[in-house]
Amino acid sequence: MPANTTDIHLYLEKIGKLTDVLLDRYLPPEDSEPSSLHRAMRYSVLAGGKRLRPILAYSSYEYCGGNVDGEDLPIHFAMAALEMVHTYSLIHDDLPCMDDDDLRRGIPTCHKKFGEAVAVLAGDALHDIAFNLVAATGYIKAVTELARALGTEGMIGGQMADVEAEGRAITKNDIVRIHQRKTGALIRCSVRIGAILADAPASRLDNLTVFGEKIGLAFQIIDDILDIEGDQALLGKTVGSDSKKEKATYPRAVGMEQAHIDAASLIEEATAIFDPFEDNVLKHLAGYIGQRRN
Amino acid sequence: MPANTTDIHLYLEKIGKLTDVLLDRYLPPEDSEPSSLHRAMRYSVLAGGKRLRPILAYSSYEYCGGNVDGEDLPIHFAMAALEMVHTYSLIHDDLPCMDDDDLRRGIPTCHKKFGEAVAVLAGDALHDIAFNLVAATGYIKAVTELARALGTEGMIGGQMADVEAEGRAITKNDIVRIHQRKTGALIRCSVRIGAILADAPASRLDNLTVFGEKIGLAFQIIDDILDIEGDQALLGKTVGSDSKKEKATYPRAVGMEQAHIDAASLIEEATAIFDPFEDNVLKHLAGYIGQRRN
Repeated sequence: MPANTTDIHLYLEKIGKLTDVLLDRYLPPEDSEPSSLHRAMRYSVLAGGKRLRPILAYSSYEYCGGNVDGEDLPIHFAMAALEMVHTYSLIHDDLPCMDDDDLRRGIPTCHKKFGEAVAVLAGDALHDIAFNLVAATGYIKAVTELARALGTEGMIGGQMADVEAEGRAITKNDIVRIHQRKTGALIRCSVRIGAILADAPASRLDNLTVFGEKIGLAFQIIDDILDIEGDQALLGKTVGSDSKKEKATYPRAVGMEQAHIDAASLIEEATAIFDPFEDNVLKHLAGYIGQRRN
Repeated sequence: MPANTTDIHLYLEKIGKLTDVLLDRYLPPEDSEPSSLHRAMRYSVLAGGKRLRPILAYSSYEYCGGNVDGEDLPIHFAMAALEMVHTYSLIHDDLPCMDDDDLRRGIPTCHKKFGEAVAVLAGDALHDIAFNLVAATGYIKAVTELARALGTEGMIGGQMADVEAEGRAITKNDIVRIHQRKTGALIRCSVRIGAILADAPASRLDNLTVFGEKIGLAFQIIDDILDIEGDQALLGKTVGSDSKKEKATYPRAVGMEQAHIDAASLIEEATAIFDPFEDNVLKHLAGYIGQRRN
């Protein structure tokens, strides 16, 4: 496990690359029918990205003592599934009837490249394959975990609230509720699925759940901050699009200074679930999320 | 079990009503957040429909000796899940970027009533809840079964091929492949999930798989026929829309007379998996599908 800032970047690179290998392996090949759909799915999933959710699942799994030796392990299926559902949500969010975005991960969005019908279906198909992969872990608890994180109490509910909040005045409570569901639920789920697949005891799972909730909210607050202060070339998406669309964002609700303070506090609270003298990769990951620039 | 034509209609009504009760129970209530999304989901799912997939799952389960006494049985979760994914597919198929339909089950389509963004999310949420429900059966095989039926080798693949075939010349083989995936895969899956939840032996599951494949293809051929010869008031959707959009249909590939002949043969082949002297509800259901007018 990494012991300093340099090491966490090596770790992120290593598990990110493993994720890319897994995604390539578990996505249907382009030369199989319907190839136009498979091409669109691969285009969006393999366009890069931080692979944060698979990395969180993996490191949570490793932290809980899960076996990492071997191919096609349950954790591998889950890692690919988490990135696929994340990509499905981005494809549907980017649609003209939703956020209407042209750029994602530095390249044209799925519907810009392949048309709207293909983008709707590519998102649907990724949503579906993800459940097939999570079922392949053999852990029915992991299926339930994913379904809950994605449902109307989780990601979809947050996305709906986000669409409805556009252009309206919002309180801190409103935006926290939106972020907890829209982004937080899947990040929490990633941490939990890692622990579930490692057969972690309930007390550890509870602790990691708190960790996942804290970093999930911090992650989205920083996302909002970067949409204002970030570097478009690093981010690979259009900066300033939130305010142009009058989206509900954390800085809009509490001010930029407070947003920075709250994000830092959440990262601190997340790492506080661990022994202060313990050095582990999840702590470093939390630190990385707090410092991220893309 | 029903012994004649009158009885099959009573059976359809009874299990259809049971399905409605289950759907109402397992759909999130309208007064829970995000209520606008829950309202749209309930609107589309509870708009009626034949409830064919849940009825097939139930009757296959019953045929295989599954216990039907009690509340919230695994088969109940599966029945609701199958109708929810069917409705999700209809909502997304009806979108302007897909089939662009205004009328479904006799009322305005989801996006006509609630807007496109809500329709995309309502479909996504139903897709998701369905997996939550199937996971609640405790049978991970049922989760895999559903995911496969909905994926790019199944329903989504068929929908993609269907969109791509619009306006093109098609052969009988092409249209059979489209129908087997677009409609057939979920019907086959419904029959199989019933058998799986009843712990049916492999030989029976194989037999029922053939049954499901035959009636699934017959069902969609008759759907194509009804789009030309059907009664709009009975169907609850616009008649003639396939030919207006130059959709790939079975009668377009083989002619109307042959379409009738092939549908009847498939129904005969489906019932032939059973002992000729055996009277069971699945046989009657096949007969009903062959005779249906809506």
